[in-house]
Amino acid sequence: MLLDGIKTRTVFFDENRSCVRMLDQTRLPFAIEWLDLKSPMDVVTAIASMQVRGAPAIGAVAAYGMALACEQSDSIESLKQTAETLKAARPTAVNLAWAVDRQLGVLERAPVAQWQALALAEANAICDEDVAACETIGEFGADLIAAIAQRKNGQTVNILTHCNAGWLATVDWGTALAPIYKAAERGIDVHVWVDETRPRNQGASLTALELSEQGIAHTLIADNSGGHLMQHGKVDCCIVGTDRTSANGDVCNKIGTYLKALAAHDNHVPFYVALPTSTIDFSIQSGFDTPIEERSEDEVLYVNGLTDEGDIARVRIAPSSTPAANPAFDVTPARLVSGLITEKGVVDATRTALTGLQNQYHRVDQ
Amino acid sequence: MLLDGIKTRTVFFDENRSCVRMLDQTRLPFAIEWLDLKSPMDVVTAIASMQVRGAPAIGAVAAYGMALACEQSDSIESLKQTAETLKAARPTAVNLAWAVDRQLGVLERAPVAQWQALALAEANAICDEDVAACETIGEFGADLIAAIAQRKNGQTVNILTHCNAGWLATVDWGTALAPIYKAAERGIDVHVWVDETRPRNQGASLTALELSEQGIAHTLIADNSGGHLMQHGKVDCCIVGTDRTSANGDVCNKIGTYLKALAAHDNHVPFYVALPTSTIDFSIQSGFDTPIEERSEDEVLYVNGLTDEGDIARVRIAPSSTPAANPAFDVTPARLVSGLITEKGVVDATRTALTGLQNQYHRVDQ
Repeated sequence: MLLDGIKTRTVFFDENRSCVRMLDQTRLPFAIEWLDLKSPMDVVTAIASMQVRGAPAIGAVAAYGMALACEQSDSIESLKQTAETLKAARPTAVNLAWAVDRQLGVLERAPVAQWQALALAEANAICDEDVAACETIGEFGADLIAAIAQRKNGQTVNILTHCNAGWLATVDWGTALAPIYKAAERGIDVHVWVDETRPRNQGASLTALELSEQGIAHTLIADNSGGHLMQHGKVDCCIVGTDRTSANGDVCNKIGTYLKALAAHDNHVPFYVALPTSTIDFSIQSGFDTPIEERSEDEVLYVNGLTDEGDIARVRIAPSSTPAANPAFDVTPARLVSGLITEKGVVDATRTALTGLQNQYHRVDQ
Repeated sequence: MLLDGIKTRTVFFDENRSCVRMLDQTRLPFAIEWLDLKSPMDVVTAIASMQVRGAPAIGAVAAYGMALACEQSDSIESLKQTAETLKAARPTAVNLAWAVDRQLGVLERAPVAQWQALALAEANAICDEDVAACETIGEFGADLIAAIAQRKNGQTVNILTHCNAGWLATVDWGTALAPIYKAAERGIDVHVWVDETRPRNQGASLTALELSEQGIAHTLIADNSGGHLMQHGKVDCCIVGTDRTSANGDVCNKIGTYLKALAAHDNHVPFYVALPTSTIDFSIQSGFDTPIEERSEDEVLYVNGLTDEGDIARVRIAPSSTPAANPAFDVTPARLVSGLITEKGVVDATRTALTGLQNQYHRVDQ
């Protein structure tokens, strides 16, 4: 997507610099800075410090980390050691282990002399597959937006999104935002309501930045506002991403998603969830079996932003004696989901539809 | 209520200083500062700059403003002129005009020599009536909490509240928080989930401060978290305040209230609204006829708080090119409200119940 008017990915191998270039997400939206990663340890640091976030983006960076490891390794033992170090950078990130193991699977069967070329090609392939899946999600989702635009006789289609499921979380295009980008490409008049998404404000910082950079009309709102906007006919559909979809179609996503789904249901607003089928977890029968991460209370007690002097700083919003709780995700029951937008097409959030999808679905790691 | 361990009201006449003392709410929760108001113009400034907020508190301060005006006025004409200036300090505040007009009604019939004594007595009466109404709301609401405590065999009762409808918005006790204070006085084990209430964060700053000062267990949460907590049985009831209740029982309150009411309904959690009957607007047939104030986008784009250096400052949370929308209130349909806690008792949010209340209801200004 566009950043400073230049088409780019969040991570790529820079042939000229012989290094992995990656957008530093900790400084966004106030500073656009690129990191040059020259060693596996640079990659570990970038992942552990959350300079890269979003499951697909983390997987891509880790895959390139294995390519960098090949420059330094002359035995499978030393390569496997680096692989373990990479995986330990953020143990809960499923895509991280998946990408590293996929690289190992390729390299184990190849002579050392070919490692560098093979690992780089595999990392590029992992990225290209992610880009292709997101782009296809975008096309299927844009069809839904186009249908709404037609029903509205070309009037602006207002879409509400929560958190950031855009290209910054992936390699390119994103999931929930891909349909919006594709609809805009088709010339459909779209406007996006952006939930700020407390406590980490990924909507206010990342989604708002993405839409600004692509020149797409958008308005930031407090997380509290979406229900009111839906009551007054100001939202035509909701599109959100998801971290994990269970076998029955329940959707686990950023905290607050459930509240928007309730409001959408109460006001007959379609509520769509965009996802690559790789994030469907058929081993989980109900979303309520998903363990919910409880994060640091400081994310609630403090807000990060730009001071009037232009520094990135935090302010505390509560009295010093007040504690906070910070569940990071919630589960939206399948009954509130109008459809799942996947790279295989748009399907109902039902066990039957997901099983059908599974039958035509070949995981790249299997 | 308690502040720094001392029992106080948000506003009162200080006999020793011969002035009106009022808590400066713009510095809360980081600094507890009292203002000495010595003239009607001091009162106008305090109201216009929002150093006092909350309809009942504004009305009380304005009533004392009229008492201060009597010290300077020797004709009904000059008194009426000051009255107009007071009312213009915040034209949309219904209680402000109501309190000023109530004072004028008393003073018009009295000799100038008695004005000062009468106006001070009337201001004290306005405050005492507000305190009595809130305290009675507290007792009725505490009965509901006691019933939950009994059903839970004395286990902690978890109550979720949104925004600040506590004593800081009134003269004492508050509305939504009064039942919690009364329940705590009765020895019931209560814990409060405090919505931060973006964009102005009245929950994080004011409600959290109030509960801290009374020593009541509470936890700050992002506005996004309440639905998840209800799904997991961690909320026994919700109690919120309201700015205006329409004749059919729809409730207009701080933006985001509707989302919590939806979640409460979806999870069979009782959702109560606490209010003095004076805020029921029988002229409005449906809540959706209530005009919704759209406030400055800066409240969404910036967050105020305390820097690590101890200064009160603001930080911007979005890119400079991103605009924001800021509807200040939403309407919760009566069907989502389990009961209205008033000083006349707990009633259903229905036209029939409210009409019954109206029949036993005598407005102090009529």
